[in-house]
Amino acid sequence: MKIGILGTGIVGKTIGTKLVQLGHDVKMGSRTANNEKASEWVKASGANASQGTFAEAAAFGELLFNCTSGMVSLEALKIAGASNMNGKILIDISNPLDFSKGMPPTLSVCNSDSLGEQIQRAYPQVKVVKTLNTLNCNIMVNPSLVPGSHDIFVSGNDAGAKAKVVDILKSWFGWKTVIDLGDITTARGTEMLLPIWIRLMGAFQTPNFNFKIVR
Amino acid sequence: MKIGILGTGIVGKTIGTKLVQLGHDVKMGSRTANNEKASEWVKASGANASQGTFAEAAAFGELLFNCTSGMVSLEALKIAGASNMNGKILIDISNPLDFSKGMPPTLSVCNSDSLGEQIQRAYPQVKVVKTLNTLNCNIMVNPSLVPGSHDIFVSGNDAGAKAKVVDILKSWFGWKTVIDLGDITTARGTEMLLPIWIRLMGAFQTPNFNFKIVR
Repeated sequence: MKIGILGTGIVGKTIGTKLVQLGHDVKMGSRTANNEKASEWVKASGANASQGTFAEAAAFGELLFNCTSGMVSLEALKIAGASNMNGKILIDISNPLDFSKGMPPTLSVCNSDSLGEQIQRAYPQVKVVKTLNTLNCNIMVNPSLVPGSHDIFVSGNDAGAKAKVVDILKSWFGWKTVIDLGDITTARGTEMLLPIWIRLMGAFQTPNFNFKIVR
Repeated sequence: MKIGILGTGIVGKTIGTKLVQLGHDVKMGSRTANNEKASEWVKASGANASQGTFAEAAAFGELLFNCTSGMVSLEALKIAGASNMNGKILIDISNPLDFSKGMPPTLSVCNSDSLGEQIQRAYPQVKVVKTLNTLNCNIMVNPSLVPGSHDIFVSGNDAGAKAKVVDILKSWFGWKTVIDLGDITTARGTEMLLPIWIRLMGAFQTPNFNFKIVR
């Protein structure tokens, strides 16, 4: 499948590398067509990897991943352009972490709204599915890095898109349990997990953990 | 031990009943000395149970539990009176859930502050330990209602008070793992778990679940 990744950070690279390994054609998008971090990733990832602008990556992908940092996601998506994204599934992994006031970061939006909702409102014809934003990126594409069973969540308004994303998470990335929280407003819940995630990383001195809902 | 419980709701009753069963002397406090819900609880709970005002319960207890609903906790504690609480451990189970704008509730304080911190700031000589606010009250005092291992958290500034509370959680209530997140500012993390907790309860149609941190 042709897949567009928005963002050249560690999340974008990790997702992109996994997708290339799975045999997909992946274009990594950024503000500029010749972004250095994207170039390095393309060189390291082989013939199925390419780079371009946000708009080029969005136009290229039949499926899109938002791996930009949350504070700039809306700006990045604006550059990507609605016409390049409309009708497509956008897997939104971003978190609205605001580091500008020091550590620990706060959320730039939370409680009565979420970044997932902001993106869905801004692009009503894009099928936004929020997921994977509650854990470290290495575990996103390799759940077995954390032993035993543990969970991720999906939030989104389009049932068909959510079902496709759940299938992708299971068959491509190896997730066994994906909890459907409901519509995109439930992204508030997963984005608001970040404050405890950050404190747990501090307490454990490792990002290699994940939430499990036991019942 | 003499224990004061602030609040006559389901959380206060459940905690109070467990403490009486364990042989402690428990006074349930409310705005009025003859609160009807407290009277019913006293009748049902036997000779070691009593009721009184917030101030009387706070003065009575060597150990205090804040089981008031979060939106009125600061007001209830003001009535309880600093002089009746100073030097004591206050186990804070409250969550700042605001139902006034409809469902799902929002948090009246979050992100850059928390109710736990507000209480600690208002009563600097009280040893506030935030815990048990991330799960249903029946599971609080009976972790085995959820099968297997699962976790609760503690947040607080006083290491000695936290150690005592962890011991209480383990030896009185049967908790096996209690994760120390750090100082009282980490209460932001556990209070901000409530939005996903509420959505999970909606998805599962039961409050009988809990978080586990797998690593």
